[in-house]
Amino acid sequence: MKKQLDKDINDENEIAPQKITGKIPTRVLPGFMELLPAEQIVFDRMKKTIQDVFELYGFVPIDTPIIERAEVLFAKAGGETEKQIYEFKKGDNDLALRFDLTVPTARYVSEYERNLVFPFKRYQIGKVYRGENPQKGRYREFYQCDIDIIGNGTLGLINDAEIPAVIYDVFSRLDIGPFVVRISNRKLLAGLMNSLDIGGLVPNVMRIIDKLEKVGEGKVKEMLAEIGVSSDVTENLFRFLSIKGTTEEVVAALRNLGIKDDMFNSGIYELENVALNLRRFSVPEQYFEIDLSIVRGLDYYTGTVYETKLARFPQFGSICSGGRYDNLTEKYSEKKFPGVGISIGLTRLFSQLKEVGLIRAETLTPTVALVVPLVSDMTVPFNIATTLRSRGISAEIYLEDAKIKSKLSYADKTGVPFVIIVGEDEIATGKFTIKDMKSGEQTRVVLGDLASYIYNR
Amino acid sequence: MKKQLDKDINDENEIAPQKITGKIPTRVLPGFMELLPAEQIVFDRMKKTIQDVFELYGFVPIDTPIIERAEVLFAKAGGETEKQIYEFKKGDNDLALRFDLTVPTARYVSEYERNLVFPFKRYQIGKVYRGENPQKGRYREFYQCDIDIIGNGTLGLINDAEIPAVIYDVFSRLDIGPFVVRISNRKLLAGLMNSLDIGGLVPNVMRIIDKLEKVGEGKVKEMLAEIGVSSDVTENLFRFLSIKGTTEEVVAALRNLGIKDDMFNSGIYELENVALNLRRFSVPEQYFEIDLSIVRGLDYYTGTVYETKLARFPQFGSICSGGRYDNLTEKYSEKKFPGVGISIGLTRLFSQLKEVGLIRAETLTPTVALVVPLVSDMTVPFNIATTLRSRGISAEIYLEDAKIKSKLSYADKTGVPFVIIVGEDEIATGKFTIKDMKSGEQTRVVLGDLASYIYNR
Repeated sequence: MKKQLDKDINDENEIAPQKITGKIPTRVLPGFMELLPAEQIVFDRMKKTIQDVFELYGFVPIDTPIIERAEVLFAKAGGETEKQIYEFKKGDNDLALRFDLTVPTARYVSEYERNLVFPFKRYQIGKVYRGENPQKGRYREFYQCDIDIIGNGTLGLINDAEIPAVIYDVFSRLDIGPFVVRISNRKLLAGLMNSLDIGGLVPNVMRIIDKLEKVGEGKVKEMLAEIGVSSDVTENLFRFLSIKGTTEEVVAALRNLGIKDDMFNSGIYELENVALNLRRFSVPEQYFEIDLSIVRGLDYYTGTVYETKLARFPQFGSICSGGRYDNLTEKYSEKKFPGVGISIGLTRLFSQLKEVGLIRAETLTPTVALVVPLVSDMTVPFNIATTLRSRGISAEIYLEDAKIKSKLSYADKTGVPFVIIVGEDEIATGKFTIKDMKSGEQTRVVLGDLASYIYNR
Repeated sequence: MKKQLDKDINDENEIAPQKITGKIPTRVLPGFMELLPAEQIVFDRMKKTIQDVFELYGFVPIDTPIIERAEVLFAKAGGETEKQIYEFKKGDNDLALRFDLTVPTARYVSEYERNLVFPFKRYQIGKVYRGENPQKGRYREFYQCDIDIIGNGTLGLINDAEIPAVIYDVFSRLDIGPFVVRISNRKLLAGLMNSLDIGGLVPNVMRIIDKLEKVGEGKVKEMLAEIGVSSDVTENLFRFLSIKGTTEEVVAALRNLGIKDDMFNSGIYELENVALNLRRFSVPEQYFEIDLSIVRGLDYYTGTVYETKLARFPQFGSICSGGRYDNLTEKYSEKKFPGVGISIGLTRLFSQLKEVGLIRAETLTPTVALVVPLVSDMTVPFNIATTLRSRGISAEIYLEDAKIKSKLSYADKTGVPFVIIVGEDEIATGKFTIKDMKSGEQTRVVLGDLASYIYNR
């Protein structure tokens, strides 16, 4: 059984290749993830852990539609994302599928601000859509698990430290090995560029430097030259990007650059403050680091930015990213709602963990006890199942009219931990045979003791 | 505070009317439900209860994409549903948004059958899309909460009784008042029509009779005449539809009709069997009833059919419907996978319960304890929150730099049950002021006793 399970899980591309039968193709669309039940159970458990932690920190759920007015999304997409939006018409409406959960939240806050309490701490877990070229680990439909803290007018810098503190808690509980939240602040690079008199190029340079890890230093220098950044300036930028060390060392090195620019110095202040508060929030030193090469691709970030890497799997890229945005609602509202947030790309993370064998599926069912009747009247079997359910134990009755062998083979295949046999003799004596499928042990107990028998194993 | 909450919840149409500012419209699209946090918390709790019960009965989760190949959906839509499908192109692909969860499940079973264990008991909770004319209680995006039991080749009739037994459990736990699962069997009407020599009209007649409750007897008779049903035959059909009473009375009356048709008699047998097993499954008599006017609008049902009504709110229509289908996978697979299932229309149910004042939102946040710091170093406040969270208590720190009055007003507005004050004095003595917001009582306790104080209230 175990062997079959492993096969199901790892050979995704081998599952039921499209049959050539003149029937309608049933294979899932390319770029869409669809899981077998054993994996779905693990996926759902991860999603639930994330949600539970978000709620433990007092984040409030919202659930915006997957379809938005196209103009709402295009107002804030920009760059490559814009080309990836699923857009369509229905009647007279230009509609589109959301590409993230942050932009819909900006719309939501603008719309309902009079009914919300600020700071508004919301979480949202849902599917988003990007028409990317499907390639390993890139999906067109994927779950994002987001938290954001949004202020009305202002929002304290300390929130920039709470966000990674929550994430530290999430990933610790998910138990997927050591990870590092890498933190920077966009004001540093923007301030540096101001001081080098190329402030107008900030958005373009940010987008190029965001690709540093993917394309390498040589390519980035080329791209910078292409948009007219002189080699002197590029050297300056790389001197900045190469600063490494502990928080104290990085901050000292940044100060040593002697840059007289308010934005730059405000960037140093913010970075130092976030690091200080992360310590106060008990996030151990090895779980976060200042990394000045983090800038993020989206234009809307204005201060702190985050990326998260698994230490053992740097090839995964960032599994959780976000940052501070001061003007996300500017297209929707007269008021200012600055925010800071982060998003876990759960679908991609799951598929990558699966790739490296870290997703261990153990059961094909939530059922804890399978009731196997050897009688046709289901009154007693149902009564047993009801009794277990009332104690919070998931119970199922094998209802099909089949040979006992088929019934037990169902138990084997699904991996249920306990089987309860109900035959004439059991009904007559009121003592039911219960078998622990792991150890193979079996015994006979009365109805009232079945639940405690299971709890005590 | 209570008053404001009530306002938020009931005046849906009055919330933040679209501002005329030259900004992008932020109002949610017509026909889409979007909730304020207080209501969202209630909605999510209902969804969680449904999911928990599904799992207690051993149903396995699946999560199919929201986007399907258009041909997959059109193969099984039919009638009005077909016109309501959201269809669009991306690249060369004809895509569409799923209009239910049953058809994607049929595709899923056809695709992965070699990797599934049968009977395959799956649940799926997710959003589906129908471009209906938005009107009260009709949504274009809505949640369906589905269970289905699918056999490989065959599926025992007893499963037709398990489905309403699960639903009985779900609605009992949701605590939304008395309800009745109304049950019929399509073989009865189809068999009757065979015996009247109008078997060829079965799908059309079913669709017309499905409208009986909505449009009334006169209109149904007119529509039957239009498709060529003679008034004699119509009288016969209505004599059948008017049979009422207990299971035993209905079955006796059906036998008394003396119809010599195998399908009809198999319908009687199935109906009687489902009722018998519902009793064995301990579903109290008043929660189910035979109602021969139930036929369902979708063509794919072939036997048992269900609808569910709230006894106090018949105007809601059916809040949970489904039935037996023998050939749902015929367009996708050479094999036969008969199934039986049911679907709760949660979005519509929620909005209707809200309409009649049965949705009681009590809090704007999952937070149980709000830590209000009067100091700027957040080490101790965070430590308190962490201690509570480790005991499973949702805790939040008010992080903004604000006057104590604003901080307490946040507590008031969100409705958190406990507030913990952390000032210099509290830190010095190690005893923190905790206030029970309901009773107004407050006391000072040490860190280690905060959680038990909360648990004991």
